[in-house]
Amino acid sequence: MLSNAEVMSFLNEVADEFPAAVSFAAGRPADKFLERLDPAALLNAYNGYDKFTNSGSDTCRSTSRLLQYGRTGGIVTDLVAHQLREDDNVPAAPERMVITSGCQEALALCLTALCQGPTDAVLVRNPTYAGAMGAVDASKLFLYPIPLNNDDLAEGIEKATAELKRVGRRPRVLYLIPNFDNPTGRVIDESQRRMILEICAKHSIIVLEDNPYGMFRYEGLSITPLAALDKVGCVIYLSTFSKTLAPALRVGALTLPESFFGNRTAVREIWREIVQRKSFNTLNTSQISQAIVGGILLQQGGSLRQWVRPAVAWYHNSRDMMISALEQAFAPFAESVRWNRPLGGFFLSLELPFSFDERAVRECAVDHGVIVMPMRFFSLDASQDKRIRLSFSSASPEQIVAGIASLADYALNRAASNLRVT
Amino acid sequence: MLSNAEVMSFLNEVADEFPAAVSFAAGRPADKFLERLDPAALLNAYNGYDKFTNSGSDTCRSTSRLLQYGRTGGIVTDLVAHQLREDDNVPAAPERMVITSGCQEALALCLTALCQGPTDAVLVRNPTYAGAMGAVDASKLFLYPIPLNNDDLAEGIEKATAELKRVGRRPRVLYLIPNFDNPTGRVIDESQRRMILEICAKHSIIVLEDNPYGMFRYEGLSITPLAALDKVGCVIYLSTFSKTLAPALRVGALTLPESFFGNRTAVREIWREIVQRKSFNTLNTSQISQAIVGGILLQQGGSLRQWVRPAVAWYHNSRDMMISALEQAFAPFAESVRWNRPLGGFFLSLELPFSFDERAVRECAVDHGVIVMPMRFFSLDASQDKRIRLSFSSASPEQIVAGIASLADYALNRAASNLRVT
Repeated sequence: MLSNAEVMSFLNEVADEFPAAVSFAAGRPADKFLERLDPAALLNAYNGYDKFTNSGSDTCRSTSRLLQYGRTGGIVTDLVAHQLREDDNVPAAPERMVITSGCQEALALCLTALCQGPTDAVLVRNPTYAGAMGAVDASKLFLYPIPLNNDDLAEGIEKATAELKRVGRRPRVLYLIPNFDNPTGRVIDESQRRMILEICAKHSIIVLEDNPYGMFRYEGLSITPLAALDKVGCVIYLSTFSKTLAPALRVGALTLPESFFGNRTAVREIWREIVQRKSFNTLNTSQISQAIVGGILLQQGGSLRQWVRPAVAWYHNSRDMMISALEQAFAPFAESVRWNRPLGGFFLSLELPFSFDERAVRECAVDHGVIVMPMRFFSLDASQDKRIRLSFSSASPEQIVAGIASLADYALNRAASNLRVT
Repeated sequence: MLSNAEVMSFLNEVADEFPAAVSFAAGRPADKFLERLDPAALLNAYNGYDKFTNSGSDTCRSTSRLLQYGRTGGIVTDLVAHQLREDDNVPAAPERMVITSGCQEALALCLTALCQGPTDAVLVRNPTYAGAMGAVDASKLFLYPIPLNNDDLAEGIEKATAELKRVGRRPRVLYLIPNFDNPTGRVIDESQRRMILEICAKHSIIVLEDNPYGMFRYEGLSITPLAALDKVGCVIYLSTFSKTLAPALRVGALTLPESFFGNRTAVREIWREIVQRKSFNTLNTSQISQAIVGGILLQQGGSLRQWVRPAVAWYHNSRDMMISALEQAFAPFAESVRWNRPLGGFFLSLELPFSFDERAVRECAVDHGVIVMPMRFFSLDASQDKRIRLSFSSASPEQIVAGIASLADYALNRAASNLRVT
């Protein structure tokens, strides 16, 4: 299996080699929504936060305050807590939060702070976000992937717990993206969320609920996050401004529950442990970035709903374009090609009648001008070998139509040559 | 022993409680030199880098490029490599570098990437930078402190290696601040540096040469860094813009040697390992911060010598003021109080005739209005209990005179009460 960095470098290499190719590989926001944060807008946000937090007139003092070393837990916890309550319906409070250098750091810190026992294991779904598997691996933690085809995730957790017990381990953490999952695009419904919480409470498993795509719902009603459904205290909520504002800010946050399984002291202890690890990892998150985030939150009255509205409309249309393009281009494949219709987010999952590996990525790029992400890059076994992840977030409607048609051409060729071989 | 985060939170608490107290505790740049980076200057630097790297006229594309996810190893490696060659005399090259979220991340990544064997140990001097001990501890690595009173550091390394061997371990990494050490202010001379390199080459120990204060020399000639003296390939050079530009940028860098002990392939392998760990830790360093650093380097013609000149003059004067104040205020103590006269950097070390603990910090702050840093916070044993670290970088000349006089008052009181007790 390729590592995450190797995957990225492989994909970048392919993209560099074929700059004209349409890419459905990268899970990044569309450039046009980043352009709103032009240099003047960045400065404006920075100044806005600076003025808001500096009641006196001593602007010099204020300038140096933001540019100095700062609080390890972050300086915009109050504004971010407010935004999470408003936009994500998460019962966040500043004193239970840590601002991190992107959500990836939040994830890495939670994993190492929580999994200190020699028998601790981390549960993920298979497939899952490659950065989660990588963080588990980098900290030499034990990873247990729960098969995705088990639709009853609560049952999957129960089985995993029993199996781990047999080998002398216990599940300590469950990592999940309940909304518009990366890489599958799937959503966990509310009844499943409640069952997951119940089983996690039973086995003292802490859920790391990662919600980077939650603001990007294109249809249906939003589902209450696990962090809000959680009554026993077993959910840490991970959030990021990479998709709503800009990846380059590298500002994320983690929010601890009010208690861990009823124990409020444990929350202070885990918070201190995480803050200490943060201080030895990156000291504190750039206060320049934090001030920009804070300034935009102030400008927007505390919520990013309005800010993301044009992007939500755009991605919604992109999803519809991709689904239509798939229906049209893959019509000849009848039942042998399947995809899901994600209710939000950046991704959908496509299943092909043949295995899709690194060589296929290259062939697709070379001969058909389209770059896609094999689902095997998000998996530890062969279960995902026939699937690919298609991102519709950063391609234009024209590119989506052309790219899906090219992908179907490739698939037809592959299927034909497979027939010949057989 | 208190942890680093606990130390900082304790000191912040004391500082918050006594805002009028003079603080010699924090090792931070003087506010007045951060004020040069006012919002307009930040914007100017950001725009300058943007224009420089964007040869075409497509400014929208350029904006979104900087705001997107970016290269894990960083985008300003060429400019930073040039600056390190110019200013630090380090043979840096972009392809052997990684830009990190502050130098703390560079340190953490090097430690975990290099020390993967179960018998690997990390050598540090005792006392040393608390963030280094913390990073070692956070990764559950084995720490071996070499006593500072052993002036022959090469001999100390030899002894440590022998002792570790006896318990089935081997030293894998040596962490050092050769210029104006934090916390002691000491410099390792060139002949010692050569001997250290020799002994490290002999035992295949990799030196992490951390040089945050190298640009701040107040007298004497600069000494060639270990990374430049290194002929066998055993030095990784760690650098930061926190002291030269601003801590809030959170931009540091690590530079690998051309070979590890003659093996050039090993450099590519370690580089890839570090980049992979970086991708699972923080994905990439904020491109906003990187662009600001890049823009200032471009404005300054590639070197920061001119930029730091006023700060060097200021800190030089501050050091002189502190030494004079010490000579005057501690005259009554004759031989029982000693301090060093650092040739650069932010710190000096003061030895008192009594033990200086957390209670002493509080008494000093409450009764004498001066906050200092016990040297025990940088140590794993009791050897430093009578020493304190005095930072002269952020106090004004008036504060230095007043603060040192207050400290002497406290010391006189302590000595008198000690006499009464005896």
